[in-house]
Order: sequence, then C-alpha cells, then structure tokens
Amino acid sequence: MTEDWLDTIKWDDKGLVPAIAQDKDSGKILMMAWMNRESLAMTKNTGHAVYWSRSRGKLWHKGESSGHEQTVHSMRVDCDADVVLLRVEQKGGIACHTGRHNCFYRELREGEWVEIEPVLKDPKAIYGI
Amino acid sequence: MTEDWLDTIKWDDKGLVPAIAQDKDSGKILMMAWMNRESLAMTKNTGHAVYWSRSRGKLWHKGESSGHEQTVHSMRVDCDADVVLLRVEQKGGIACHTGRHNCFYRELREGEWVEIEPVLKDPKAIYGI
Repeated sequence: MTEDWLDTIKWDDKGLVPAIAQDKDSGKILMMAWMNRESLAMTKNTGHAVYWSRSRGKLWHKGESSGHEQTVHSMRVDCDADVVLLRVEQKGGIACHTGRHNCFYRELREGEWVEIEPVLKDPKAIYGI
Repeated sequence: MTEDWLDTIKWDDKGLVPAIAQDKDSGKILMMAWMNRESLAMTKNTGHAVYWSRSRGKLWHKGESSGHEQTVHSMRVDCDADVVLLRVEQKGGIACHTGRHNCFYRELREGEWVEIEPVLKDPKAIYGI
C-alpha cells in the first residue's frame, strides 16, 4: 500500500498534526489531540484512534488505560492538510479523562468558564487508582 | 471585566491556541484555525470569530475578504485548557477559501484522499480576483 496519503499531511515543526475526534452519532466534538506519522498510520491500519502523547512523549492508544477506545469510521483532512478529523464511535460514551462524555465541558458564561457537562463515571473507577 | 478567563488558557510556545469552529445547526466541523490572546478577546467582545493568521502574521477577522463571517454563539474550552471550541453561524454557508461549506472536504478512501464535498461558489467570485 502506498503511503502517499501520509505524505499529503503537512506535519508541523515537531512532526505532529492536530486530530479532532467527533462522535459519529451525536456529532459532538469529543476531544482534540495530536498525531505523528506513525500514530496516524496505526490509526488507519488498526481502525482505532492512536495519538501521540506530547506530555509523555510516546504513542497513546486511546483507551489503553481506561478501556475507552475510539473506533474510527472515517478520516478527513482539511484544505491546508494540516488538521485531521476523525469520526469515531466512542466506547463507553466517555472520551475525557475526567469521566465526561467529551473534553469540552466548560462554556464561557458571563466571563467565566462554567462546567456544564456531567461526570458520568468517577475517574478513580475508570483508572483503578 | 476580569480577564481571568483568558488566563485560564494554556497558550503554546508561540502564544497560540487551536480554535475549532463548529456549525451550530448542522454540527459539522467547519474549520480549525489559531488564536492568540488578542484575537480570542476580540472574538468574545465582537461576537465574531477573529483568528491569528500564522502565514500572514496578523489578526484575521474571518470574512474580512470573503464576507463569510462567523457569528459566535458559544465558546468552550477543553479539559487541558489548550483547545477552544466555537459554535458559530456561518454567513453564506461557506467557511472554506475553496468555496466549500467546510474545510474537511477530503476523506480517506482506499488509501487516497478523495474530494467529497462540492464547491458551492467559485473562489474567484468570492474574492473578486
């Protein structure tokens, strides 16, 4: 299989590209993380989202600790080829490490960030801490 | 008005944060661009999306050339406070400089990026070139 599709991507100066994960059913934005070439290739080959953890400096198989994997149904790239969009099925319905459906749970209201999405499962129970 | 909400944001080493624009009605992801502190403050104060153009190195009032402004209905931030999500009303229904509804018009099919969204308006007509 040719890797032309990977060469299309305009990787940033760190060799990364932002990847947005959108719930395929609700259309909600679950999260945004980063991918390097290897993780994007693995995402395609395995059918599950694999990111690059900038904080840990290693591949991050989404769900490896939590069990909350993301099955990838489609992948898109934007006009500048520097952002990737995944439509995913979110296992457990929880994408965020805080135990919420998605990571965008704070909304700006009257000049303050207000938490407006519920915690669905205690992170301690998710990660067995 | 306090600027605590701006201090919450974890700006990257270039003073920027990725901003995802989502169509408030269809839920489609229109585009992802970048904001610095000034552009995010202006977005809130004007109610219209203002980005930071990395290629031009200046503020970019979305729609300043095309007329395709984005009216911002809500702003969210993610768990790590390093990504912003805007729910917007897209004037003209065209977010992309290619004349398409959104920038994610290429999908990976059988190992190739395939254009699957139509051009709604000729860019030459949009930008008067």
